[in-house]
Amino acid sequence: MLINCVAYEQGRRLADVPVAEIGSFLARPGCFVWVALRDATPEEMAQMQAQFGLPDLAVEDALHGHQRPKTEEYGDDTLFTVVHTVELSPTDEPMIGEVNVFVGRNYVLSVRNRSRQPLLGVRARAEREPELLQLGPAFVLYAIVDSVVDRYFPLVDALEDELDAIEDQIFEPGTQARENVKRLYALKRRVTQLRHVVLPLLEAMDQLTGGRVPPGFSHTQDYFRDVVDHLTRIQGALENLRETINTAIQVNLAVSTIEESQTTKRLAAWAGVFALATFLVGVWGMNFKYMPELDQPWGYPAALAVIFGACGLVGWRFRRAGWL
Amino acid sequence: MLINCVAYEQGRRLADVPVAEIGSFLARPGCFVWVALRDATPEEMAQMQAQFGLPDLAVEDALHGHQRPKTEEYGDDTLFTVVHTVELSPTDEPMIGEVNVFVGRNYVLSVRNRSRQPLLGVRARAEREPELLQLGPAFVLYAIVDSVVDRYFPLVDALEDELDAIEDQIFEPGTQARENVKRLYALKRRVTQLRHVVLPLLEAMDQLTGGRVPPGFSHTQDYFRDVVDHLTRIQGALENLRETINTAIQVNLAVSTIEESQTTKRLAAWAGVFALATFLVGVWGMNFKYMPELDQPWGYPAALAVIFGACGLVGWRFRRAGWL
Amino acid sequence: MLINCVAYEQGRRLADVPVAEIGSFLARPGCFVWVALRDATPEEMAQMQAQFGLPDLAVEDALHGHQRPKTEEYGDDTLFTVVHTVELSPTDEPMIGEVNVFVGRNYVLSVRNRSRQPLLGVRARAEREPELLQLGPAFVLYAIVDSVVDRYFPLVDALEDELDAIEDQIFEPGTQARENVKRLYALKRRVTQLRHVVLPLLEAMDQLTGGRVPPGFSHTQDYFRDVVDHLTRIQGALENLRETINTAIQVNLAVSTIEESQTTKRLAAWAGVFALATFLVGVWGMNFKYMPELDQPWGYPAALAVIFGACGLVGWRFRRAGWL
Amino acid sequence: MLINCVAYEQGRRLADVPVAEIGSFLARPGCFVWVALRDATPEEMAQMQAQFGLPDLAVEDALHGHQRPKTEEYGDDTLFTVVHTVELSPTDEPMIGEVNVFVGRNYVLSVRNRSRQPLLGVRARAEREPELLQLGPAFVLYAIVDSVVDRYFPLVDALEDELDAIEDQIFEPGTQARENVKRLYALKRRVTQLRHVVLPLLEAMDQLTGGRVPPGFSHTQDYFRDVVDHLTRIQGALENLRETINTAIQVNLAVSTIEESQTTKRLAAWAGVFALATFLVGVWGMNFKYMPELDQPWGYPAALAVIFGACGLVGWRFRRAGWL
Amino acid sequence: MLINCVAYEQGRRLADVPVAEIGSFLARPGCFVWVALRDATPEEMAQMQAQFGLPDLAVEDALHGHQRPKTEEYGDDTLFTVVHTVELSPTDEPMIGEVNVFVGRNYVLSVRNRSRQPLLGVRARAEREPELLQLGPAFVLYAIVDSVVDRYFPLVDALEDELDAIEDQIFEPGTQARENVKRLYALKRRVTQLRHVVLPLLEAMDQLTGGRVPPGFSHTQDYFRDVVDHLTRIQGALENLRETINTAIQVNLAVSTIEESQTTKRLAAWAGVFALATFLVGVWGMNFKYMPELDQPWGYPAALAVIFGACGLVGWRFRRAGWL
Repeated sequence: MLINCVAYEQGRRLADVPVAEIGSFLARPGCFVWVALRDATPEEMAQMQAQFGLPDLAVEDALHGHQRPKTEEYGDDTLFTVVHTVELSPTDEPMIGEVNVFVGRNYVLSVRNRSRQPLLGVRARAEREPELLQLGPAFVLYAIVDSVVDRYFPLVDALEDELDAIEDQIFEPGTQARENVKRLYALKRRVTQLRHVVLPLLEAMDQLTGGRVPPGFSHTQDYFRDVVDHLTRIQGALENLRETINTAIQVNLAVSTIEESQTTKRLAAWAGVFALATFLVGVWGMNFKYMPELDQPWGYPAALAVIFGACGLVGWRFRRAGWL
Repeated sequence: MLINCVAYEQGRRLADVPVAEIGSFLARPGCFVWVALRDATPEEMAQMQAQFGLPDLAVEDALHGHQRPKTEEYGDDTLFTVVHTVELSPTDEPMIGEVNVFVGRNYVLSVRNRSRQPLLGVRARAEREPELLQLGPAFVLYAIVDSVVDRYFPLVDALEDELDAIEDQIFEPGTQARENVKRLYALKRRVTQLRHVVLPLLEAMDQLTGGRVPPGFSHTQDYFRDVVDHLTRIQGALENLRETINTAIQVNLAVSTIEESQTTKRLAAWAGVFALATFLVGVWGMNFKYMPELDQPWGYPAALAVIFGACGLVGWRFRRAGWL
Repeated sequence: MLINCVAYEQGRRLADVPVAEIGSFLARPGCFVWVALRDATPEEMAQMQAQFGLPDLAVEDALHGHQRPKTEEYGDDTLFTVVHTVELSPTDEPMIGEVNVFVGRNYVLSVRNRSRQPLLGVRARAEREPELLQLGPAFVLYAIVDSVVDRYFPLVDALEDELDAIEDQIFEPGTQARENVKRLYALKRRVTQLRHVVLPLLEAMDQLTGGRVPPGFSHTQDYFRDVVDHLTRIQGALENLRETINTAIQVNLAVSTIEESQTTKRLAAWAGVFALATFLVGVWGMNFKYMPELDQPWGYPAALAVIFGACGLVGWRFRRAGWL
Repeated sequence: MLINCVAYEQGRRLADVPVAEIGSFLARPGCFVWVALRDATPEEMAQMQAQFGLPDLAVEDALHGHQRPKTEEYGDDTLFTVVHTVELSPTDEPMIGEVNVFVGRNYVLSVRNRSRQPLLGVRARAEREPELLQLGPAFVLYAIVDSVVDRYFPLVDALEDELDAIEDQIFEPGTQARENVKRLYALKRRVTQLRHVVLPLLEAMDQLTGGRVPPGFSHTQDYFRDVVDHLTRIQGALENLRETINTAIQVNLAVSTIEESQTTKRLAAWAGVFALATFLVGVWGMNFKYMPELDQPWGYPAALAVIFGACGLVGWRFRRAGWL
Repeated sequence: MLINCVAYEQGRRLADVPVAEIGSFLARPGCFVWVALRDATPEEMAQMQAQFGLPDLAVEDALHGHQRPKTEEYGDDTLFTVVHTVELSPTDEPMIGEVNVFVGRNYVLSVRNRSRQPLLGVRARAEREPELLQLGPAFVLYAIVDSVVDRYFPLVDALEDELDAIEDQIFEPGTQARENVKRLYALKRRVTQLRHVVLPLLEAMDQLTGGRVPPGFSHTQDYFRDVVDHLTRIQGALENLRETINTAIQVNLAVSTIEESQTTKRLAAWAGVFALATFLVGVWGMNFKYMPELDQPWGYPAALAVIFGACGLVGWRFRRAGWL
């Protein structure tokens, strides 16, 4: 579906362009065309390919989707970029969409697939800053990628918040260790999924700044360095999360094991005290004829005293040893 | 076994060529010969070596098999490539076959060993696109490798499905932890086996795109970059699987330990309650002469009341502490 | 908030400069201006940007904060550096502030945000060594970074002391394993946080020494190599901490598990001894008519002797097996 | 001990050479001398050093042994290589010997120390292929290293077989977990030892193929690439083993823990059933005067019925919960 | 403290030089001065700095100590090297000292701090080999570093012996698992400390051989390659130790857990046998009036027979199941 198709000159909006007339605008010097598609059909892509001379392999990638985030140069004047949009919650299955961007000398074509996040704001913001927009198609690519990357930050924050929430649980006495493990496991999967979105994009963006950059991107290096910087920060946070989750799983198990085994020990200690008591009452339950204490009036109270005394002594020693 | 041997010109099928006449076609400019062998015998290989002047070490590799996936240049005009075909299920021993491809200036020789996956489809598809096939032997190599790599994707999907199935089990109460561990272990071995097929191939294909490429491969770089891209995606999925399996083994053990120790704790708590009851009935089972309560009509019911009361109190406290 | 703004010539303080007159000093050859701001407002930054011609993206970074430590070149004559100040205790949440430094051909502008550590000492020390200060803005950057980095050392020492304290606990019998794990976990998070401050700064500083350095930094390479050296030392200590903490968590759990299970084993052994005794007293508590030993005067003492003898024997064997 | 000393011309054996006459053969153009020593004494090495002008440090290395596998160039025309021979079984301490090879423009000197694997076969095979042997000293080095590396493969196979055997044990019910751990641990040490033989050699051989190679080795690159290929395959197998052993240790512990704790749980459940029964018989063992059921003829059978009924009920519930 | 100060010419000792006259010897062509200090005071360092024109930052480093091992070039003709001496036992806190070496075109200054290992032997040995000593200051640096590195080998051997000793313990039945863990933990810390001495030195020495080396070191590359080789060997041994210790900690815990839980299982099985016996004696301890077996003369022996029979049966089944 065509969202819009606009021609720009000197960073200013020139006109909304019908698709069929794109060619004439491409011919005007100092002018570039910015087309936005959404969930493009093969027919739309074929039309665009005809207008802009897009490379076959890239068009196929844009149609089939499920590519890794990447940046590919075709010949001297076409750059094909894939970035992923993510709608991620710490618990539900994330939805990963794609924005495919073709950048030529005098055009930008963005194709957004399987994503509910509109990019209209990018165009609006770019049009408000003509001195930047006149940097041309390369700047538009920056604006799109920057906007997508900015939406990663709240996702990382949400994952960090979930980790904090679980951490608070872990050292809580009587915690639901099993539930914690389950949440940590789910959280780790989320982090891994986000990493697979971020890491290849970081590599891809790194090719647009520093050292050798594709032709037409030398004047936007500072901008892409900024994007790389953001992605590096996100990546650092994700590595941090990943390692901390690993430790948290281990620590959660440790705390739970320690707690459970202390309870078991305590119950075993109680069982020991009662075993002593049961033995003693059994002694006086024996049926020997000549057990003189049985015939004394003080026998019963004395027996109870002995029992409670012995158990109390053992219990006190157990408590001193930290077992009760 | 010779599958077929065909000469092409301008990307179009020229003629089926008897092996003995290969030489004359090789001499025609703008023409190349594409030979396909299967489970080649030493005699067939010797014949081919004579026709194409194949390097000794590579021919030996193709005959003996059990090579790593790789790409080797011999002199200026011969490239020897080994890729592995895999038939893998998450539970059975995988079958790993090989496709050895020799690429020269004007010939392609593919030798498929120990593999039940035919490559006939590759030739058919290539012949339907003469504008691509006229890119020559390098394109044929791409078509073969691409076809093999495409068959890796369903394998990775099957492994991921198996992992999902196990994950669903892990957090199921009363799960068969032992069975889960066994499946995870088997799954991990499959992943490792597939990695040993994919990783070296990724490295090998990377040498055919970007930077310095062998002579005769400069015009097919975009195609091999596409293959590298697919392999990188597979590799990412395998790394993901590997790490997730490690975590799942750990988490499965954690969940099982937590569950078992809770049961043990609960049984120990019940044992504690009965230890108390047994002690109490033992008290009134003692044979002291002067135990006034024994002679009262209300003695028995009162004793039972005391027993059930005491046990109920302890049980209630245990339940409050989460032990029952 | 403007802290101070001073012009220097030949490494000597020339004059305190009102912000509005900075321009005239910048025009003097061999003279540079060093401005220090703290928690700068957008207005102050705009003023500075006008005076020094600072790049937009860098100014935005300095205002918004939450950047990674980094070094960025803008054009040929501006270097933008971010370093983090840390106030960290092994137990409390650390406070991370930033020092943003803009270095030009003839000016230095430092902006300190969210940090309670004043940098006044840096200026005082620099002014006492005019032969160094005349190395110019690059040296001032070194002096600032060096001062910040020097404050990392006591943090690392504090973390190492905390680890030593926990280690002493781990092998103490009857230790609070749960508490140790909690402290180790908190400590690990501190280490991770400090790593995220140190590692990017190490990378950034490495760009100012050895190989290619930005223009205007070739004569200060030895100084920045010194900073890199300090940071490498800190990084080594942090890696060391990280790995040791991981091992300590594992070892703490091991020691605790071993201790708890020994106690459980010991209690179970005691329970076994009492189970034997209880069985024996039960035997003579049976109500069979013809149990000849019950009628003997020596029956009771003999029974007690048998009981204590049997239990003593079992207890002695258990002790020999290391179970008691 | 001198094994043999032969001069070759055009790849053909010229004559057995007495050590003292080596010099005259070295002077003949197109001729090279191949000397083999075994457990060389300092005197023999000194003699060789005099004949060939070997570098001091390399001679010292060859005498003292215990070097890492390596390749070192001395000046423009001497290459010193150390490879390790291994006699390794999965259970016994491995024996690691060394082959030191000096390669010059027109000589090869191999010194085999602490190794029972003769290299005579290498010379025999080389002499049967004069067209290869005429490639000169570099080819001889290849032939020696190739022969040593070929002997690594059965070692790796033996280690993999041992792992397979242990794996079969792990999931066997009632397995000897302790014995498995012990075997896995021993196996891991073997793998580590073999890695320390293979990895440095891989690095060393890599220097003789691709990119820059020492003078005199440019025409043998394909051969050394073949060796590198074999070593890479071995290395991959070792990495695989290493990781699988780690997982196997973990999994073995998991399976054993799960099995043991299930047994403990089951025994605890049985203990619970008997605790109930013991309590009930205790009730009717109390000595209260007014316990009407004691006086009924149906009392005893009814009591037994109650006891077995109650225990059966509890046992049935335990079984349903998977505890029995 | 000045140890000695000697001038050399052509590799031969020329004269002992008073510090004040160093200058005149430095002026003689083909002559170099070798000064050795120990625990140098600031005054001594200032004196040396004046004589040799040492760089400020390096002098500071040599005075303050606690540097990482490193090699730093200052200008074209001064190289500053720090190596660490270690006195390490597997159990005690190690003592780490430093040797700081300044190497110039015609002088060597070594400053040994906090180390009890004298370097006098280095000078003696060097003087015995004038043909090597005439290689100049670079060779002296090699001789010093080589001597320090040689002293690392016995440390590594001691650590490996300690590991072997612990390993022998681990699989010993009835082992002190706790004690083993403690020793392994201490051992791991030692290994980490030694790694922090070895790794940076390896990096530093690598800069003095192969590729680009500092001026004045091109003729000593073979010697420093030898040092690098030794350090690489040590590093390999340390990595090996580190990984083996990790596995050993894990395995030790596994073995201990397996052993303890088997004992617990065995005790629980015994408890089960006695629970049955106690239940049975309780049955005949009940006070029902009509329990016909109580009145029979064969009642008591029959009861005992039943009890021992039932317990024997259960015990036999438990033993068959491997629980007893």
